[in-house]
Order: sequence, then C-alpha cells, then structure tokens
Amino acid sequence: MARASDAKAILGRLRPPVEEELRTVIGLRPEVSSLYRLMQYHMRWLDYDKDTGEFTVSTASGGKRFRPIMCLLTTSALGGDMDTAIPAGASLELIHNFSLIFDDIQDNDELRRFRPSIWAVIGKPRALNIGAGMHSLVNVASLRLRDKGVPADTILDIMDVLSQSIIELFEGQEMDLSFEERDDVAVEEYITMVGKKTAALVEASCATGAILATNDKGKVDLLATFGRSIGIAFQIQDDVLGIWKDPKKMGTPLGSDIRNHKKSLPIIYALNNASKKDRKLVLVAYHKEQMSDEDVKAVMDVLERCSAREYAESVAEEYAKKGMAALDTAGLSDDAELRTIARFLIHREF
Amino acid sequence: MARASDAKAILGRLRPPVEEELRTVIGLRPEVSSLYRLMQYHMRWLDYDKDTGEFTVSTASGGKRFRPIMCLLTTSALGGDMDTAIPAGASLELIHNFSLIFDDIQDNDELRRFRPSIWAVIGKPRALNIGAGMHSLVNVASLRLRDKGVPADTILDIMDVLSQSIIELFEGQEMDLSFEERDDVAVEEYITMVGKKTAALVEASCATGAILATNDKGKVDLLATFGRSIGIAFQIQDDVLGIWKDPKKMGTPLGSDIRNHKKSLPIIYALNNASKKDRKLVLVAYHKEQMSDEDVKAVMDVLERCSAREYAESVAEEYAKKGMAALDTAGLSDDAELRTIARFLIHREF
Repeated sequence: MARASDAKAILGRLRPPVEEELRTVIGLRPEVSSLYRLMQYHMRWLDYDKDTGEFTVSTASGGKRFRPIMCLLTTSALGGDMDTAIPAGASLELIHNFSLIFDDIQDNDELRRFRPSIWAVIGKPRALNIGAGMHSLVNVASLRLRDKGVPADTILDIMDVLSQSIIELFEGQEMDLSFEERDDVAVEEYITMVGKKTAALVEASCATGAILATNDKGKVDLLATFGRSIGIAFQIQDDVLGIWKDPKKMGTPLGSDIRNHKKSLPIIYALNNASKKDRKLVLVAYHKEQMSDEDVKAVMDVLERCSAREYAESVAEEYAKKGMAALDTAGLSDDAELRTIARFLIHREF
Repeated sequence: MARASDAKAILGRLRPPVEEELRTVIGLRPEVSSLYRLMQYHMRWLDYDKDTGEFTVSTASGGKRFRPIMCLLTTSALGGDMDTAIPAGASLELIHNFSLIFDDIQDNDELRRFRPSIWAVIGKPRALNIGAGMHSLVNVASLRLRDKGVPADTILDIMDVLSQSIIELFEGQEMDLSFEERDDVAVEEYITMVGKKTAALVEASCATGAILATNDKGKVDLLATFGRSIGIAFQIQDDVLGIWKDPKKMGTPLGSDIRNHKKSLPIIYALNNASKKDRKLVLVAYHKEQMSDEDVKAVMDVLERCSAREYAESVAEEYAKKGMAALDTAGLSDDAELRTIARFLIHREF
C-alpha cells in the first residue's frame, strides 16, 4: 500500500516545473492585464481586493496539479524524457482549471476551496471571458511542445487527444445538468457521464504522456485505459467526499452536493435501490428549490440505511483495480511513482 | 465599385463547401446528441420546440460565412488550392459562432436574427456547454487539414494564428465589458478593442488562407494587415447599423445598441466631442439601469447634432482604404473576388 508521504514527495518534486510553465503561459500576453490577472486569481497565485481593484500575491495553497504530474510520470515510466512533457502538462492543467470556472458559474457555487469563485468576484459575464480566455490558452501551451523538439505530427496527435477530452468534458457536463431534471438515472448512465466529465481528462493525461514516449499504439491504449479507470474511481471518491467529507477540510458545508441537487453516485444508487418510502423522501427533498438542513439530513439518513456510501466505494475500488490491471498488462519497468500517485488519488481524503 | 450582386454570386458559390464541412464537423460525435443538436439550432440548421423537445429542419437563413470565404479567396488569390483551405474555413466559422453564443449570454440578448438565442431556449448554464463545446470543435476542424495533405508544421502555424485570434477576441470582450463602466473611453482605446474583438478573427481568416498558399512571410503579413483593417471597418459599420439600421432588417429594435448601453464608436465620439450639455444627456441615459424609448431618442438626437454617424463612417472608410492599400502592395495577380467581398462587407446594409 502506498503511503501518502510517498505521494506527497512525488507531487512536491514535480509540481514546481509544471507551475513555472503555467505561470509562463498565463503571463505571455500582458496586454489587457485584467484578463490575465483574474486567471492568476483563479489559479490562487493572486488575491484580489474588489473595492480597491488591487491584486496582491496570494498565500492560498494551489491545486495538486495531479493531471500534469500523471502525464509526466507516464512519459517517464515509458522511458521518455519527462521534461518534454511539461507543456502538455500545462495544457492539461489549463483544461481542468477553465472547466472549473465554467462549473462554478453553472452551479452557482460562490466558493472554491475557501475563496470566492471567480464569478462571485467579477460577475458572470466577465467570468465567461476568463474561462473562455483560459480555454484558448490550452493551444498556446501545447504549441510550446515545438520548443522541446517534439515532432509536429506528434504535437498534432497530442492536440487531437486533448481536444477530444475537452469535448467529452462538455458532453459530460451536459449529461450531468440533464440528470438534475431526471429521477430515473441508471448507474450505467452515471458511469458514462463521469467517464466524460472527469475521466476523459485523466485518460488524456496518461495518453499524451504515453504518446510523447512511444509509438507503440498498444501501450498508448493501455495507459489511456489506466487513466480513464483511475479517473472514474477518483470521481466516485469525489462524490463520496462531496457528501460526507469534514466541512473544515473541504471548504464547503456537509452534504453540500445534496444541497446542490447533485445526482452523484450515492444518490443514484439510493433512487434505484432504497425502499419505496425512502426513495420518496429523497425525491421530495430533491424537488425543493431550496433544501433545508433537515432535508439534507433526511437524505443522508436514507443513504445510510441503504449503504450507499459502501456501494459507491466498492464501485470506485472496482475501477481502481481495472486501471491497475491495464498498467500490469503494459508491463513497464519503472511505473512505481505512477502507481503511487494513482493510489493516492483514489484513496485521498482531501 | 463592386456591385452587391457580384458579391452575392461569390458567396453563393463558396458557401456550400464550407457549409458541408461545418455540418460534418458538428455531426462527427452523435453521442450526447442534445449538445450537438443545440449547436445545430444555433447554426440555424434546426428549429427546436421547447415544450415537446423536438428538433425539426429549420428554414431560417444561415450566416454569410464571410470569414471562411475570405480565407478561401486569400488562398486562391495567392495561387493556392482553395479546397485545402476548407477545414481552416470551418474553424474560423466555429470561432465566430461560439463567440456569439457567449456574447448573447453576456449581453442578455434574447434574440439573434429573429430567433431566440440559445440561452433563451435552454437557460444560461446549459448554453455554456454549447458554447464551450463548440469552442473545442475548432481544433477538430483544424486537424482535418491533415486529410487535405497539409504538412503538420503548416497546420501548427495555422492553429497558432487561430488560437491567438481567439485570445484576442476575449481580450477585446473583456475591454468591451470594462468600457460599460467607464465614461472616459478614448477613440484609440475603442480601436484597440474592436481590433481584438472583431478584427483579429478577420485578420486570422486572411492570414490562415495566406499560410496555406505561400511561405512568403511578407505576403502573409500584408494579407493579415488587409484582414485586420477590413475587420475594423466592418465593425464600425456594424456599430452604425446597431444604432441606425431599419429594425425590420436587423431583427432588433432601432437604437438597440444604445438601449444595451453599448459604448460603440458613435457614442464614444459624442462623449468626447459633443457640447457639455449634450454629453450630460448621453451620460444620464447611460447611467440608467433601463432606458426608456425617450432616453434612446434623446441620445440619438445628440448623435445627430454632433454628426457622430458621419464621423464613424469616415473612420470606417479610412480603415477600408488602409486594407486595400495593403492588398495593392501584395501585388497579387487575381485578387478581384477578395476585393469584391471586402467592399461588400464594409458597405453592407444587412
């Protein structure tokens, strides 16, 4: 079993070069500085005082950058030069981050990890510019693979994988929003949705890392499967945390996903498997515009009675095993760090 | 002087291959069909019945696709094969269209050319998926240049130009929104803003078309200058139409840009050049949350008194001449159709 301290040491070592690349890409065009400074606010590098309009260096802790780091570790596990993968890593992190900007707008989430989300600071119309602007920096980051000597055809292959992952992300987002209006979502549909919304980007992290190291299509596919499976397990773990995680560690209240009417896996499981009476309890709460603390508590009690958390955790474990099996089949000589990070992601409590 | 009938014949001839390519790209991924059907609604190919959820073939007239057509004509004017440029043309049109989706959301515009805008049909959260999803199809379209035998390095150059144009578009959008809160915008700032928001994409249309036909950097730069100048002239003409155009032809009410608090060139000119009293009249109207018909009328009277329309039209003419001069310098043997379309755009009344 991987220890969290091992994972943290790897993240600590690989985060700085990724961070430096991200800062370069977001800092390339100082014109219209408000656009880029607000991206830097979202990246947790700057704080912003709405009243004075001043930006100052932030002490907020940034993201773990685990997608770029999985990309780098995949390149390395396949015998490639990790340094080559840094621009692809920046692209992956930009995709993740611009999608969060849109996600907060769509869900009306005013907080992201203890800080006001970008739209809560500057309003939704301008926040769209920040999100779409960051989306357009993804190509800028990928094009920097040219400076690493990566062949043009390989760069196009990577941009293809990245673009498909973004498309899937919004396909998943569209499915997710449509679930909000439905009471009959099946577990299979949920898996398809998170496969798109979350796992496609983790798949892309490993696939791009692999493409930079090898022409062996079979190996690239196995790493892609590894990434997608780990991504699904990761999202289910996120669903569990979104309901049961200690509010002090998440920056959002207990049962937050329930309050936001999220049809995450534990809820879908309950709607399909709880007693008729319990199912009705969940539906009554979910059909309210505003849920009270009591409503949230009632739903959580239903989840408890039908062991929805245990079920979700068992599905996550199943996908984790599937991912590790793909990695076994790839038979890489030095994939220890990649495995450590994958296990850390799946069992994380952050 | 170009006749509108000549321009319409060119548009009529070149629109179908562009349209076919667009339909292919937007139809490549039938999964999560609502996402793509709603893109097709926005493209005016489908109508949508909100109550039944049914999509039917639309009889609405689509856009002119003038950006792709300028790209194709540039390739051709430089002796290249127009067919090669079709995927780049599709990318340009996708950029224009996804930006309109965001623009309608940001400006709260419920109508786009006589039809409900996409957010007015499905709400803003889902409309974001359609806009960002279409944004991610831009790369998919560009990657199809591979099938036309375009060298990988040239495709990367084209993707670079396209990405920069998208970034500029959102820089311009950010400037435009910030103008709404300011009463002291200078004409130069306005020109910088529309250079980014509108002209960068017209520049990219000509620059990508040129890159596909020649390695001569000097010629590419001249065509880029041509595109940017025509783009600025086009936007100023659009500003004029946004205030004075016959409501029956625009699908929006007279003085619509005024009612929407737009700081377009005629308004900026008036704020800088009208009498003190007239300036105050404009500011009073613009500081109201909701403008009445009388407010709009009062502002239009101020514009009349300081000849703001004549001024705007003279600036448009200046940029049009600058663009044509760049084309003269490029000294192409067969640029007649490119000139015809450019003149049509600048003098259009649609």
